[in-house]
Amino acid sequence: MLSVTILGNNSAVPAFNRHPTSQVVTQDGINYLVDCGEGTQIQMIKYKIRRGKISHIFISHLHGDHYFGLVGLLNTFGLLSHKQELHVFGPEPLQQIVEMQMKVAETELPFPLFFHTLNKNEVLVDNERIRISCFKTRHRIECYGFLFEEKEGKRKLLIDRVRKLNIPVSFYSSLQSGLDYITPRGQLISNDTVTAPPEKGKKYAFCADTRYDESLIPIIYGADMIYHETTYLDNMREMAYERFHSTTKQAAEMARKVMAKKLLIGHFSSKYSSLEQFESEAREVFINTDLAIEGNTYEVH
Amino acid sequence: MLSVTILGNNSAVPAFNRHPTSQVVTQDGINYLVDCGEGTQIQMIKYKIRRGKISHIFISHLHGDHYFGLVGLLNTFGLLSHKQELHVFGPEPLQQIVEMQMKVAETELPFPLFFHTLNKNEVLVDNERIRISCFKTRHRIECYGFLFEEKEGKRKLLIDRVRKLNIPVSFYSSLQSGLDYITPRGQLISNDTVTAPPEKGKKYAFCADTRYDESLIPIIYGADMIYHETTYLDNMREMAYERFHSTTKQAAEMARKVMAKKLLIGHFSSKYSSLEQFESEAREVFINTDLAIEGNTYEVH
Repeated sequence: MLSVTILGNNSAVPAFNRHPTSQVVTQDGINYLVDCGEGTQIQMIKYKIRRGKISHIFISHLHGDHYFGLVGLLNTFGLLSHKQELHVFGPEPLQQIVEMQMKVAETELPFPLFFHTLNKNEVLVDNERIRISCFKTRHRIECYGFLFEEKEGKRKLLIDRVRKLNIPVSFYSSLQSGLDYITPRGQLISNDTVTAPPEKGKKYAFCADTRYDESLIPIIYGADMIYHETTYLDNMREMAYERFHSTTKQAAEMARKVMAKKLLIGHFSSKYSSLEQFESEAREVFINTDLAIEGNTYEVH
Repeated sequence: MLSVTILGNNSAVPAFNRHPTSQVVTQDGINYLVDCGEGTQIQMIKYKIRRGKISHIFISHLHGDHYFGLVGLLNTFGLLSHKQELHVFGPEPLQQIVEMQMKVAETELPFPLFFHTLNKNEVLVDNERIRISCFKTRHRIECYGFLFEEKEGKRKLLIDRVRKLNIPVSFYSSLQSGLDYITPRGQLISNDTVTAPPEKGKKYAFCADTRYDESLIPIIYGADMIYHETTYLDNMREMAYERFHSTTKQAAEMARKVMAKKLLIGHFSSKYSSLEQFESEAREVFINTDLAIEGNTYEVH
């Protein structure tokens, strides 16, 4: 199961109790942190995110509202005696910025911290459960989106049939991997009579900060859910273009063009106290749009 | 009038809805920010601190819980088109850390920002209304406390007498400065018959992070209010010493020895969910102790 929990949904300046960008992508109990604006660690406490379950942090770009909370979070991991490896992905000077602040404080982190520099579209994580890759977006400074692609899971046991046929428990994981079973008397039980096909892996694209950019379409095509920034309402298209941001209808247009099943919108400008119009404008173009609301978890279906 | 508003009262790790160190010292409508832990700008919104009234920021030392919110706050000042000069005082690498992050984001602040490096006990601000100086404390890394000394105000007009004697309004400010008045008929009206002495300027010492250190006594002696850290309860004296922090009774002992009128305690370790015992222990030694509670304003009397 893949889901996204929003920790911050606002753009540059915190306002109206909305916080700078951060979200947690969760798959099977593993938390991947995407962006880490100031106060992210406080939002994590508020929304009961298990910090110890974070092993990868992805920073889209080095505007402060996307990473000023990182050094504090790493510091806290250190003070809480986090032990496991932590991998941080971000544009180049990030490592230098963090290390400088650690050095000045004479802080030695008690866990192995690995920085990975983003500089092109590439695969960042690839294991049995998930593939995570990055892609460049069109922003004022170097900026990356992240694509989370769940691998297909194992086949599902049809437990009533399995039991009725007295297949031993020790063979269950072989069944889940697709093997047929041969009974002690030599009878073949075909796998597809006792298991169902696995669920299709889900696909989620975090599109970071960006102008409306159709070159993203082939990269995120067919995502089950996309998050696209909507810093502005659609009457601000010109401003959005100048500042390398997007509007409600542009985000919705992108969701429509990539055949997404669902669109999450966020990164709202602090000039807007209410978000209702963001939702209604985007839904005019793409009906299955939700506001990214802090504390809410959105399952990728 | 001198007062202190607490924005963060916790030590290293935010916990129990307590935040890292920050406080605002206010004199006659001018706000001086002392330390700026992560989330300070969000606390300022919560507690309605007028950010535009801040022209000086003092950073005691470069442990993250005392300054990780600074770069975000400066960024926000920029985005909100702050125009007036801003002066930041802190240990040396602070300027480099902030400038590096601004440069990476291609941010140009729209106001003049001046960094002042702390490296010895000295006067930092000295004007008609206030003198602010710094003093070294005994911490793991270079660390400074700050002493705020209000200048004596102007003499107070005894307005009934002034009016009865028909002293012209245009001469009021001369009266407040201590001049005698001579009537058109040549009669001398002695200043002390129509004005009262000014209020004594108040004195507040922020003692930053520190081991119990009697060398501070002559520097902050006679302060009307002192803020002293109490990271630990008094049964943790050894730990406090090792980590260059103080306990409740040590803070109270300091207040007693410098003949302070009031003691504020803060910088509580995140191991303590309740603060009651901090208050009771300190009061055993120095009765006029208050917990520094976030959002509360403490007038210096």
